[in-house]
Amino acid sequence: MGSIASMKAAYLGPPGTFSEEALRAFDASNKWEPVPFPTLAEAYRALASRQAAFAVLPIENSLEGTVGTTLDLLVQEPGPLIRAEKAVPIRHHLLTRLETKLEEIRTVVSHPQALAQCAQFLQSRRPSATQLAAPSTADGARQASEQPGVAAVASLAAAQRFGLTALAKDIQDEPDNTTRFVLLSAQDAPRTGRDKTSIAIALEHQPGALYDALGGFASAGINLTKLESRPSRRALGEYLFFIDFEGHRSDDLVDHVLAALRKRALRVLLLGSYPSG
Amino acid sequence: MGSIASMKAAYLGPPGTFSEEALRAFDASNKWEPVPFPTLAEAYRALASRQAAFAVLPIENSLEGTVGTTLDLLVQEPGPLIRAEKAVPIRHHLLTRLETKLEEIRTVVSHPQALAQCAQFLQSRRPSATQLAAPSTADGARQASEQPGVAAVASLAAAQRFGLTALAKDIQDEPDNTTRFVLLSAQDAPRTGRDKTSIAIALEHQPGALYDALGGFASAGINLTKLESRPSRRALGEYLFFIDFEGHRSDDLVDHVLAALRKRALRVLLLGSYPSG
Repeated sequence: MGSIASMKAAYLGPPGTFSEEALRAFDASNKWEPVPFPTLAEAYRALASRQAAFAVLPIENSLEGTVGTTLDLLVQEPGPLIRAEKAVPIRHHLLTRLETKLEEIRTVVSHPQALAQCAQFLQSRRPSATQLAAPSTADGARQASEQPGVAAVASLAAAQRFGLTALAKDIQDEPDNTTRFVLLSAQDAPRTGRDKTSIAIALEHQPGALYDALGGFASAGINLTKLESRPSRRALGEYLFFIDFEGHRSDDLVDHVLAALRKRALRVLLLGSYPSG
Repeated sequence: MGSIASMKAAYLGPPGTFSEEALRAFDASNKWEPVPFPTLAEAYRALASRQAAFAVLPIENSLEGTVGTTLDLLVQEPGPLIRAEKAVPIRHHLLTRLETKLEEIRTVVSHPQALAQCAQFLQSRRPSATQLAAPSTADGARQASEQPGVAAVASLAAAQRFGLTALAKDIQDEPDNTTRFVLLSAQDAPRTGRDKTSIAIALEHQPGALYDALGGFASAGINLTKLESRPSRRALGEYLFFIDFEGHRSDDLVDHVLAALRKRALRVLLLGSYPSG
């Protein structure tokens, strides 16, 4: 039983979403059983309830910024750990049934965010088309596969799944649209020599608090790759800082810095060590 | 001519959006002429082209995180400055014509993001309703005002503008949904004694770089209220750090810290000093 569950991977469904694309990218050996969940929180909780051994969550988009919901989930205790990261380019395509021509499209259906990310393209090419919101890009593709004159904005994976063709490719307004995903599980990754570690630390809202906290990293020569403050939802006047840095928590140097940090910060949450993506 | 233009305020339109609501909150004396623009970038550029004296931009949402597009605009040089900030609660309502009942709603129309933020409510209360994407929440309200059986997800301001009634109030899935807006103009705000200053600094990607940069703030006893790293779009391996701290740039202490910082950082961009929101 344990071995079956250990192969399940939770993601924000349904099948054909970019979260599933990220899941496939994490699962190089193609051994996992993807299990879709309707929300990020439910995909996350599938780990604690042992419905899945892995969960894939988006953490940051190059245009929209941080996914606040995911950061809020990551600091729940006791929580699973990040064991891998992957940047997935978000590429949208205009998908239709094979016989449909661009000028025949009367309706474009997709997840609201995907429609928003292709707003300029849709406005300039099919200004008269009705835009229909679907619960996911994949569900939009399903709808397009069932009716002529309906186009979907979705991934090529969704096109394949529903037998659609891409009338126009890469229709997102911003060419550099990338989402970084993290893979969570009960354990993080072993040391490879090219690793990153993510932590969240709670600090009092005082001058010099962050400076003091960063001192250990500076004197150890550890490079920070990301730093973001976020008001803690636990206590007023308490700030959380999400910090990514180079190195693995099993490195002596990192271990030493984290031990010193625990004496200075209100809380230090280890979010995981994993190979640099 | 200058005096007329000096009263115009650019925002992300159309009328009835939360950006307009923020604009009204900034304009306590109700003297400005709101001018809607179709994108954030165009609202921002209205300042340089002197089509407007003020611009209102969303900078951060409590759920979604930072608005990356706005941060990228703020670091353009030479740029306008932040002269005020305001947190606006994002409250969505289900709006219909007066005679429409909940069970008669066949279509719900709104901006894709608003539909997404009310997904759980819509799914549980009107699962069979078709969700239509509109270019803005306000345009959705206009559509709902023209057809029976159509509901909009929009603000009370939009309800007023189009003579709609709220069948259900505060239907957003997350009760604490707040967006922080900044007000930009050629000049920032004079010192009040309870001020904040926003800067962006470019640092080389080296251990200790951020620690060194923060040293001045720590030894001067200046409180940081926000810190966020973002890869620079100008040069590979260069990081931008967006820092908010307590104090006004005309304070001797702040002036001293910024002068020292200019010697250490690749670039220091002053984004403005303004009263704490």
